[in-house]
Amino acid sequence: MHVVAEPIQRLIDALSQLPGIGPKSASRLAFYLLRAPGEQVQELSAAIGELKASIVYCGRCQNLSVTDPCAICADATRDASLICVVEEPLDVVAIERTGAFRGYYHVLHGVINPVEGIGPDDLRIAALLARQKAAPATEILIATNPTMEGEATAMYLARLLRPDGVRVTRLARGLPVGGDLEYADEVTLSRALEGRREL
Amino acid sequence: MHVVAEPIQRLIDALSQLPGIGPKSASRLAFYLLRAPGEQVQELSAAIGELKASIVYCGRCQNLSVTDPCAICADATRDASLICVVEEPLDVVAIERTGAFRGYYHVLHGVINPVEGIGPDDLRIAALLARQKAAPATEILIATNPTMEGEATAMYLARLLRPDGVRVTRLARGLPVGGDLEYADEVTLSRALEGRREL
Repeated sequence: MHVVAEPIQRLIDALSQLPGIGPKSASRLAFYLLRAPGEQVQELSAAIGELKASIVYCGRCQNLSVTDPCAICADATRDASLICVVEEPLDVVAIERTGAFRGYYHVLHGVINPVEGIGPDDLRIAALLARQKAAPATEILIATNPTMEGEATAMYLARLLRPDGVRVTRLARGLPVGGDLEYADEVTLSRALEGRREL
Repeated sequence: MHVVAEPIQRLIDALSQLPGIGPKSASRLAFYLLRAPGEQVQELSAAIGELKASIVYCGRCQNLSVTDPCAICADATRDASLICVVEEPLDVVAIERTGAFRGYYHVLHGVINPVEGIGPDDLRIAALLARQKAAPATEILIATNPTMEGEATAMYLARLLRPDGVRVTRLARGLPVGGDLEYADEVTLSRALEGRREL
């Protein structure tokens, strides 16, 4: 079995730990990189190595950014009366891509998931409440995924936020239930944004 | 569209260039790495960065290795009368995994493919001929993939090698035509090795 040279095996092992990459895909990638131009390989190595160094959390929306506040929070032309709460940074990307949303965001970095031991205190909920208290939005759109955990988190947030009189909305049921927001196409996501309803 | 922080976008771009990884998978991997333990991320970065530095071609079988000759060529207990010719280093791994082969290997690093402009001179064929001249094997098993290019390369090699009296064989047709040797299961590949036939 020890027919693969150690540096190649080491890379295969490291790649195999990534989600969605099995040992065979890892082998393919390793041998692809062996043959790829040195420049491309070094760029990939550097991009991975330097990834975390310059990334911070935006103190306002909690999104990952190189600046604090992030580019979106620093954009004063957006609609401050509307905050869209999402699970992950990639969800911000998906919604921005539609061009149908001009408010600000709040990234929870997860959902309430008792099975995996993730409670409200593990999410950026306190920051959302503090933010809403300091500069109240008139509507908070909870765009967590239409999964069981996403719905439960939305209900939890609605119960926390509604007493202060803010309108709490949810993305329209245009998204397939059990699906993943991040993979929705632009049209479906645009329609879901337009048709958002009171929670 | 510029809602992803630059270091993250840079990594997404670098990952997107890998075969089989589209922009969505690249995003998922990038955000996974952002959250992964720093140790794991640095190990992956280092494994990629240091990949090429210590890898050489074995002067005998042309396989990638940290030593020259490689571990297989240096193993004197193997059967020197039999050489198995494969397209890629991963094919050596696949055949070794069967435990059904005790000869030596020769890695071509590709196949003849006129469409992509790959001719015999682009492969490690001269090294195979020189090696066979210096220490003749009695059988050369050409285990290129059962694809059009693999078959053409096998025919080409057979025509070159047979005049010297060596027995030229091919893996048995147990492999699905158009398939990829690297993905064959051990049993199929073992059977194909046992039933190899004269070319």
